[in-house]
Amino acid sequence: MRKETERLIALDREHTLLAHIGAVLGWDQETYMPEKAVDERAEQLALIEGLAHDKAVSPEIGELLRKIEGAAEHGQTKLEPAEAAFLRVLRKEYDKETKLPADLVIEMARETSVSQAVWAKARAGNDFAAFAPHLEKVIALNRRMAACLNPAAKPYDVLLDLYEDGATEASIGKVFGAMRKELVEILGKIRSRPQVDDSFLHKPVETEKQEKISKLLMDALGYDRKRGRLDTTAHPFTTTLGGDDVRITTKYLVDYFPSSMFSTIHESGHALYELGIAPGPEFSGTRLADAASMAIHESQSRMWENMIGRSKGFWKRRYSTLVELAAPALDGVGIDAFMRGINRVEPSLIRTEADEVTYGLHVILRFEMESALISGSLAVKDVPEAWNAKMKELLGVDVPDDGHGCLQDIHWSMGSFGYFPSYALGNLYAAQFMDTMRREIPGLDAAVEEGRLDVPLAWLREKVHAPGATWLPGELVKKATGASLDPSHFTAYLRRKYGEVYGF
Amino acid sequence: MRKETERLIALDREHTLLAHIGAVLGWDQETYMPEKAVDERAEQLALIEGLAHDKAVSPEIGELLRKIEGAAEHGQTKLEPAEAAFLRVLRKEYDKETKLPADLVIEMARETSVSQAVWAKARAGNDFAAFAPHLEKVIALNRRMAACLNPAAKPYDVLLDLYEDGATEASIGKVFGAMRKELVEILGKIRSRPQVDDSFLHKPVETEKQEKISKLLMDALGYDRKRGRLDTTAHPFTTTLGGDDVRITTKYLVDYFPSSMFSTIHESGHALYELGIAPGPEFSGTRLADAASMAIHESQSRMWENMIGRSKGFWKRRYSTLVELAAPALDGVGIDAFMRGINRVEPSLIRTEADEVTYGLHVILRFEMESALISGSLAVKDVPEAWNAKMKELLGVDVPDDGHGCLQDIHWSMGSFGYFPSYALGNLYAAQFMDTMRREIPGLDAAVEEGRLDVPLAWLREKVHAPGATWLPGELVKKATGASLDPSHFTAYLRRKYGEVYGF
Repeated sequence: MRKETERLIALDREHTLLAHIGAVLGWDQETYMPEKAVDERAEQLALIEGLAHDKAVSPEIGELLRKIEGAAEHGQTKLEPAEAAFLRVLRKEYDKETKLPADLVIEMARETSVSQAVWAKARAGNDFAAFAPHLEKVIALNRRMAACLNPAAKPYDVLLDLYEDGATEASIGKVFGAMRKELVEILGKIRSRPQVDDSFLHKPVETEKQEKISKLLMDALGYDRKRGRLDTTAHPFTTTLGGDDVRITTKYLVDYFPSSMFSTIHESGHALYELGIAPGPEFSGTRLADAASMAIHESQSRMWENMIGRSKGFWKRRYSTLVELAAPALDGVGIDAFMRGINRVEPSLIRTEADEVTYGLHVILRFEMESALISGSLAVKDVPEAWNAKMKELLGVDVPDDGHGCLQDIHWSMGSFGYFPSYALGNLYAAQFMDTMRREIPGLDAAVEEGRLDVPLAWLREKVHAPGATWLPGELVKKATGASLDPSHFTAYLRRKYGEVYGF
Repeated sequence: MRKETERLIALDREHTLLAHIGAVLGWDQETYMPEKAVDERAEQLALIEGLAHDKAVSPEIGELLRKIEGAAEHGQTKLEPAEAAFLRVLRKEYDKETKLPADLVIEMARETSVSQAVWAKARAGNDFAAFAPHLEKVIALNRRMAACLNPAAKPYDVLLDLYEDGATEASIGKVFGAMRKELVEILGKIRSRPQVDDSFLHKPVETEKQEKISKLLMDALGYDRKRGRLDTTAHPFTTTLGGDDVRITTKYLVDYFPSSMFSTIHESGHALYELGIAPGPEFSGTRLADAASMAIHESQSRMWENMIGRSKGFWKRRYSTLVELAAPALDGVGIDAFMRGINRVEPSLIRTEADEVTYGLHVILRFEMESALISGSLAVKDVPEAWNAKMKELLGVDVPDDGHGCLQDIHWSMGSFGYFPSYALGNLYAAQFMDTMRREIPGLDAAVEEGRLDVPLAWLREKVHAPGATWLPGELVKKATGASLDPSHFTAYLRRKYGEVYGF
């Protein structure tokens, strides 16, 4: 390895250490910090973020990158694949941090701080008109940002690429287009059938019992608690405080115990990914040891939560233990009724509460609207009408007010455009990984039924987790599955599963 | 305020933020951090300490200090008292951080790292000879350090001053000399009387019950849990994670519940001090908002633990609640028997387990030995013999081996000389504060009996806590009590209290 690369690794490791320190401060804030500490904690976080930013934009990084890139271009040096990948990741981050002029960064921070506050009030009061001028400004700032980062590309492509490296509106539009038609059709079939009963899932289960169930599930998944832990917060999340310190949180709803159960599996899926990243000791603690993308991250949480955690094979040998631990909530409920209950589909207004089938439709709606807003083909004032029409078209539901409609998500007020697709792409990646795994490991389903979850985990670690950010998400899926991302894996999975649940 | 001072305040606040961030990392490490995260956490801590050091030794601080000091000296500027105090504190810290040559700092770090490891093994194996050459080196390094910091002063004076600003061997020797004679005499009286029974304190009390007792005590003391919290660790401690975030820990011994009870009161005393420091908003978050000294800190923990927490007035209205919460451990034990039990005196080999009467004798022994070691009048090879002779003279006990003798404390192996006196000075300050409080607040004892602990707390906040590091400890005690430190307050308190417990 070139000595310039070695120096870049050392610089990048300090940046990672600062990011992890920030994560410790953030985790503590959400879990155990006393109430009145909040103001100084904000200052502490701002200081660490400032220091991390200073490290990330150090001119030394720019000079070293230019030097190696120049030598490689002129054929004076040959880069190892991992070294080349590290330099690609670092270059992208460095450009992102340095190409935006300071006044734009400051304006974005100021405007999104205001627009988030306005959005929260507007959502509560169903007052889209109050939010509209701020949405206008945030969109304009996003267009400026895209132009700074890559003036040659379509603005929405630049924004998508920030979250899903290498993705474009066309590439995502293609897979979402195929998925859209299928999901609408599957949903139609489900709606033609009688609804399943899940009333038993709403019987009270005390917090202590739910905590036991969550810890059992973490252990079942092979989440090493010497490298992580479970706590409770208002909103469940996963956070990386160190290469050997990835923690999750959950929330216990006494009247709906599946919430903590599946959020624990979901977050454990994220944690297993983070803990499995291992692009080689030379690159530990660098950004090459980060996730490939947000969508790949979601593929891991959703695979464990839905494709494994909501499958009959997973519960076959565990269900009796669950019945005991949740007693008396599931007394007299057979495993088949339980399976139908936890896989109930019900079109609803709110994305974050959506099931596996309708979730993708919520995301497609946002993707189509974001694209139109950034290109200018949709005017901000027309957002509520367009939103409500799409909800009717895709999900068949009537939106009663903007608080339950176009004002429900915080993302746009935060200045995030291009993030939503990751949520749905995760499902698609997950189904394609599952099908490949099943093909390559003939005994996979039997192993899962026997409780040997180390079998799928070992495959995922090798094919998906270990490389970290070595490959672009599009390259990763090709290397792991032999093909480009293909939404038919996901829709075939839905047809199989929900055909059984709803009997069609 | 001069603009240079304002700049120094801004610089010092960043240093404090980094120190608090380090405290968050440290607290998490002791409480909730997963086991395997330890290596990276050490790197994170080293990074933060390095950044804090860089801030502390910034040449800008030196220049600003010189500028203001020069102007003040030539009568060109008049400093406000708080401003002058802040500059004094900053100057002392700056000198401490910058006057030591790098090679000495590195050698000290290297040697103490080795000597701690050797000490741990030597203690376990009662092998003083193995530790002796390292103790020699650490003493030599301490002498060099003292010579760098202040070549004109006696080396042990320089070391003492690091922990107790303004203290000298002569000033401490004077108060310890008076205390020594008294303590030996009081202990003699106690030993002439029948020992009290405390067997009921060893009855099992479950952890959950002890936790309830601890939380009740925190609330009773007025420790605001919106600005702090209680957790469990191997060794109890108090740590400041922010101006409004001071946390304590305790440890539950099922077979000796007074341990958690009094350690919670002790640490709450430290926390109340930290939370009460308020030298004015201009100086919040600076080193002027630090404690006056370690001894003043100990005065607060020991006053609450021993003088209030082990007094009959404190328990009068609370004892029945304790009996209920600890049931059945205290069933049939009256308050007078309980008071005798929790105030039992028993000379023992180990300082950290010592009671209020013998603790000071343990400290005097170390003070006398440190002084002799640093001056060279005691050779390292003669330490065990000198230790054992002093133990016999002061406490009347025979030391069976060096592990229970001169090898029991970690301090010397860590390079700390001059710290021990703080432990005993705390008791002396506390007794003098108590006597002054009682004189100034005629209803004090009645208020404590009624459970109104806000009465002593308000006095302490105003007289002791609020100034922070504004005054040297010696000045603080004069301002708060009208007199210099006088050990007779403490010894009179012991005579009163233990005369009652042991009936002499």
